[in-house]
Amino acid sequence: MTESHVVIMAGGIGSRFWPMSTEDCPKQFIDILGTGKTLIQMTVERFLPICPASNIWIVTSERYGQTVKAQLPQIPDSNILTEPAARNTAPCIAYACWKIRMHHPDANVVVCPSDALVTDPQEYRRIILRALEFSAQGDRIVTIGIKPSRPETGYGYIETAGGTCSSGEVVKVSSFREKPDAATAQEYLESGRHLWNAGIFVWTAETICKAITRWAPQIAGVMDTMSADFYTPKEKETTARLFPTCEKISIDYAVMEKSPDIYTIPADFGWSDLGTWGSLHANMKRDADDNAVAGVSAELHGCSGCVVHTDSLKRVIIEGLEGYIVAEKDGRLLICRLSEEQKIRDFRKED
Amino acid sequence: MTESHVVIMAGGIGSRFWPMSTEDCPKQFIDILGTGKTLIQMTVERFLPICPASNIWIVTSERYGQTVKAQLPQIPDSNILTEPAARNTAPCIAYACWKIRMHHPDANVVVCPSDALVTDPQEYRRIILRALEFSAQGDRIVTIGIKPSRPETGYGYIETAGGTCSSGEVVKVSSFREKPDAATAQEYLESGRHLWNAGIFVWTAETICKAITRWAPQIAGVMDTMSADFYTPKEKETTARLFPTCEKISIDYAVMEKSPDIYTIPADFGWSDLGTWGSLHANMKRDADDNAVAGVSAELHGCSGCVVHTDSLKRVIIEGLEGYIVAEKDGRLLICRLSEEQKIRDFRKED
Repeated sequence: MTESHVVIMAGGIGSRFWPMSTEDCPKQFIDILGTGKTLIQMTVERFLPICPASNIWIVTSERYGQTVKAQLPQIPDSNILTEPAARNTAPCIAYACWKIRMHHPDANVVVCPSDALVTDPQEYRRIILRALEFSAQGDRIVTIGIKPSRPETGYGYIETAGGTCSSGEVVKVSSFREKPDAATAQEYLESGRHLWNAGIFVWTAETICKAITRWAPQIAGVMDTMSADFYTPKEKETTARLFPTCEKISIDYAVMEKSPDIYTIPADFGWSDLGTWGSLHANMKRDADDNAVAGVSAELHGCSGCVVHTDSLKRVIIEGLEGYIVAEKDGRLLICRLSEEQKIRDFRKED
Repeated sequence: MTESHVVIMAGGIGSRFWPMSTEDCPKQFIDILGTGKTLIQMTVERFLPICPASNIWIVTSERYGQTVKAQLPQIPDSNILTEPAARNTAPCIAYACWKIRMHHPDANVVVCPSDALVTDPQEYRRIILRALEFSAQGDRIVTIGIKPSRPETGYGYIETAGGTCSSGEVVKVSSFREKPDAATAQEYLESGRHLWNAGIFVWTAETICKAITRWAPQIAGVMDTMSADFYTPKEKETTARLFPTCEKISIDYAVMEKSPDIYTIPADFGWSDLGTWGSLHANMKRDADDNAVAGVSAELHGCSGCVVHTDSLKRVIIEGLEGYIVAEKDGRLLICRLSEEQKIRDFRKED
């Protein structure tokens, strides 16, 4: 009988949401939707009905270790793995899965980001359980595919082998596609064979370790050496020395695009990567004028289509804004049109 | 030889500039233009070349006494008069002038607000000295009239008796006019006989005390009683008891509109009452895109015609605003179109 584990990747730095999200406290650790819970807390809670906290693992960077412990007191400290350097997702996943396999050789593992939104957690769990059931049967890698609802150019796509397919049905992946241009995204939407790549993977620890050993042997070699000290007092020191020597590469490039045996399950559980202020606005509670407010309850007069996210302000009065972001944190204020949000990275570069 | 004194009225609460100006720290005590000096400091400095600090008197409300002392260390504490209750300008002026007359029976007095802007202080002093010279000659009340530069509907007007007149020339006032509608303001502008009422008065202490005794005998009676304790340890207590019994009335209604012997000197010294965000914007240093910034140096991208005034914020980035006020103080943020600034009083009412 396989045992299910969950690995939540929480090392991102969320640079698109300045000043709300900063390198000191990135998006996954923020109550970005104004619900009273941070995104990583929502991610963990989504799994608790199907996975005990003792089987949930968090991989984050060292600087966020304390934040993770503070926000997720139910997760054992020993399940919080910290990376001494950011090496993208392949070494991150390898570290967690090598470690899980050592004590749980039959583990069946879900890997997912810490900062995405799911509005239908029950359907999410149904899909995850279906994927776990399938991956448990052997050397099968599953990546969850989100049924596209619009010709999104901001996501990578998964192309399935067959025709259109329904939610929860396992299908073979024929290829992965980079972020498309608008025309291609429209074709993908109409094809019925393309799904959004949500970065949610399901596999047994044995399967992914074998796949990494085959397709990314340099990383596997580092993990084999490091693992001699896993669960010992030397783990931290060894990891600090060896982990940064791993190739910096995503799991998509390192494994998914090379392995011939990748499956997907088309899913529809209200997913968003919350990667833009626009997606944030779309997923927040909005008033009759399409304004979304988090933080102190801003008083809006003649405003529409705005997202207002404040942190330390005591009172906010806004008149006559349409389609703007107003965000404040720790004395940093941003006012920017939603339509121009891609400029925010450039604006804030010297902060 | 008459001795010149200056009375600066500093009791206003500046409700139009929320959140920058609040009842705890109104406009006159703020560096509203971002010059490094508060308006009351600029007002005092304007007079120092022609009047020693020992002859400058500040009348303010009790809650601002400490603020005045902190901002104006050169003014003797004994020259700072505090009103136990706001009774408009007639009792305020009466208190100061009764008190000055007691120790300086020959005093010649300038009375002015603490929160107006003058961009040509040298010309201002020239006009004031001309007015003092004229008022020293006896029972003559002078009110400085600003030559209108636009058909302003936000000011009261002084109508002169004669034809058009030049700066610095004393002319008789025929009447005072309330804030006009737009058409009337245009007529006033074209007439050449109408001046803005800046609330700057020049008279001898004897002249104004006599005028108040004649036209506002209730206030004069209170002052006669109060003055028995002026310059004694009982002054504060007596003032606390009697001052609030004064009729609440402006000097304009109490004296200026009743007295037949009022003179004005048309002047042109770059005056603004800074009564609106629009006037503030017009009088601040502006960039090539007509933006005015005070406080932390806001980074503006694609903005024009904005006034940005921040206090405690550490960083401000604004994109794509045209013609807006962005103001912050003590954690209170206002964003409002300049064209809608008259709504601010209503927005903030419950603060």
